[in-house]
Amino acid sequence: MNVTLRGRTGHFRTVSFDAARNSVQLIEQRLLPHAFKIIGTKNFRETAQAITDMVVRGAGAIGATAAYGLAQGARAFRGSDLKKFSAHTDLVFKMLAEARPTAVDPVNAMNDVRRKMLAGKTVAERQFLALAAAEEFANEDARHCEEIGRHGAKLIRNGMNILTHCNAGWLAFVDTGSATAPMYAAQAQGKKFHVFCDETRPRSQGATLTAWELAQQNISHQIIADNAAGHLMQRGEIDLVIVGSDRVLGRTGEVANKIGTYTKAVLAARHKIPFYVAIPLSTIDWNLKRGFDIPIEEREESEVLGAWGIISNPKSKIHNSKLNQRAYIRVANPTSSARNPGFDVTPAELITGIITPVGIFKPKELWKKLHPRITAGM
Amino acid sequence: MNVTLRGRTGHFRTVSFDAARNSVQLIEQRLLPHAFKIIGTKNFRETAQAITDMVVRGAGAIGATAAYGLAQGARAFRGSDLKKFSAHTDLVFKMLAEARPTAVDPVNAMNDVRRKMLAGKTVAERQFLALAAAEEFANEDARHCEEIGRHGAKLIRNGMNILTHCNAGWLAFVDTGSATAPMYAAQAQGKKFHVFCDETRPRSQGATLTAWELAQQNISHQIIADNAAGHLMQRGEIDLVIVGSDRVLGRTGEVANKIGTYTKAVLAARHKIPFYVAIPLSTIDWNLKRGFDIPIEEREESEVLGAWGIISNPKSKIHNSKLNQRAYIRVANPTSSARNPGFDVTPAELITGIITPVGIFKPKELWKKLHPRITAGM
Repeated sequence: MNVTLRGRTGHFRTVSFDAARNSVQLIEQRLLPHAFKIIGTKNFRETAQAITDMVVRGAGAIGATAAYGLAQGARAFRGSDLKKFSAHTDLVFKMLAEARPTAVDPVNAMNDVRRKMLAGKTVAERQFLALAAAEEFANEDARHCEEIGRHGAKLIRNGMNILTHCNAGWLAFVDTGSATAPMYAAQAQGKKFHVFCDETRPRSQGATLTAWELAQQNISHQIIADNAAGHLMQRGEIDLVIVGSDRVLGRTGEVANKIGTYTKAVLAARHKIPFYVAIPLSTIDWNLKRGFDIPIEEREESEVLGAWGIISNPKSKIHNSKLNQRAYIRVANPTSSARNPGFDVTPAELITGIITPVGIFKPKELWKKLHPRITAGM
Repeated sequence: MNVTLRGRTGHFRTVSFDAARNSVQLIEQRLLPHAFKIIGTKNFRETAQAITDMVVRGAGAIGATAAYGLAQGARAFRGSDLKKFSAHTDLVFKMLAEARPTAVDPVNAMNDVRRKMLAGKTVAERQFLALAAAEEFANEDARHCEEIGRHGAKLIRNGMNILTHCNAGWLAFVDTGSATAPMYAAQAQGKKFHVFCDETRPRSQGATLTAWELAQQNISHQIIADNAAGHLMQRGEIDLVIVGSDRVLGRTGEVANKIGTYTKAVLAARHKIPFYVAIPLSTIDWNLKRGFDIPIEEREESEVLGAWGIISNPKSKIHNSKLNQRAYIRVANPTSSARNPGFDVTPAELITGIITPVGIFKPKELWKKLHPRITAGM
């Protein structure tokens, strides 16, 4: 998407590749929203480290990063011995897969690259095909998000107030995003609307990443405490909710997403506000039989007990973004501990529709209407 | 309640009076949970300033502070001219009433003190009666909270997990608190239970004040993000919710309280978890006809856009409490703004019961069962 720096606007992808330098180019997301910086990894080991260290996060974005990382590793190989090349690329694959062991997207993306690469008969051909496949993967990811936007934009009417939770924006994908895609498409169609970004404690991705994204695209928005959405719904100030997801169960329509999503779905149902989940098809798990079995990660207590930001003056209107002023503060009572479940599961009955690149489905219709198309290769 | 400092445990009230020094003694709440300090005001002007600056907050606590402040001002008068004394005490009353203009508790408390004081025939008698009345007011506040505890403790069974929101603890009253009172009483009865404290963004009173209080009384507790309660309820990990209130409508049973209370009530109702509101009788508004008319304060954006705490290391288990390390950090995107409603209103249908010093009532029964007793002078 567009990013404006020092008055100039340029188009950036979250993940891209510099073929001349054989380098994966990543937006350093840990510095956002206080600084915008593109970093280039020198080799596949640095790429794996960037995934581990959460320089890049989000299903689509880490999938593309791993795909590029595999091509990067393949292209670094010197020689023409196919057997040695295969051993080398196996090592690259393994290191990138282990960078974030619970994520499925990097492995799926690299399987795709490897399969296409093996059509080559020489090392040089395979190196060429690996990069072509990684580029294709990244382009597909971006295109699928655009399709989500095309379908989802129909839900957005002029003057609407839209609530979103966490960041399912372009920073979580190669471009455009999932939950934000309908907003960007609606904006392109000239529609006017306002977005409330849940802060999304404890990691505050709504206040940092989503708010930054929307500000860059000049979309009217305000940040609210996670506590405030219920009150705004009660007063008729929210018309539509769109969130992303980490895993949608194709068999039941249940949606796993950032902690707090379930709460917003319960509130939306009470107030008869449409609640949509926007996802690429790769987010659908066609195997798992019940949401209760989705493992819920318990994260670091320190996330709940404090916060990260830039040391600042609350009365100031201008916020200095010197990164040497970035600090962690302990907010909570020093002798208290915390529970920190990272995700929750929303039942199908609370979800109005699932926005996918191939259309909008009722959550309980995924298995009947979408699964046959998937198994038939669309 | 008890506070343990450097290994020694002492009993403290949030607000008390040092007659020898003619000084109101206040726990400096802005330093909690990172430091515990009692400050003494030198005169009624300093007492008024302490209310304005939120050294002390909470309905019961500021009521008692104003009552003591009026006595403090009366006792500082030199001379025996009753007319001059009256002019002086009127000035004291006015300054303390204007310290937090929207609050009703200071005015109600001072009216009580003034009425009793006027029974005195000399300046010296009135000075004596003013302090006696202020002491009586503070003792009543503490006793009412104990009664809330006595009634509410019946709801707490061994092994329960209790959720609370914000701080309706002893720091908001003279002692014992409202929402926490049943917990302290149940603990005294030897019951074992666990408390989840909602962080309560944006001001984090749950993570700071409530967690500190519970830690001081050795009550098992954990802080959770405001987003997490829905998930915990879904997994059967919450058995009871108790919160306080800023205003309960006696005619409808609607409850105004810290933003996010309504959300927790909606979630509790969905999961059939009992949801109680604990209040002294002074919190009931017998006049207002509908909750929608309760003014909802829009607070500073900076509260939502950042946080206050002690600069620390997230990996550290020991948190330094040097107050010169207290800082405000900007968490949110620097160019984004916020909405910050401070309160919300929960309808009676979502509330299981109102715990008062004179018993537990269904919210819609307040008018029929409690109001006649109030008007009959109990």
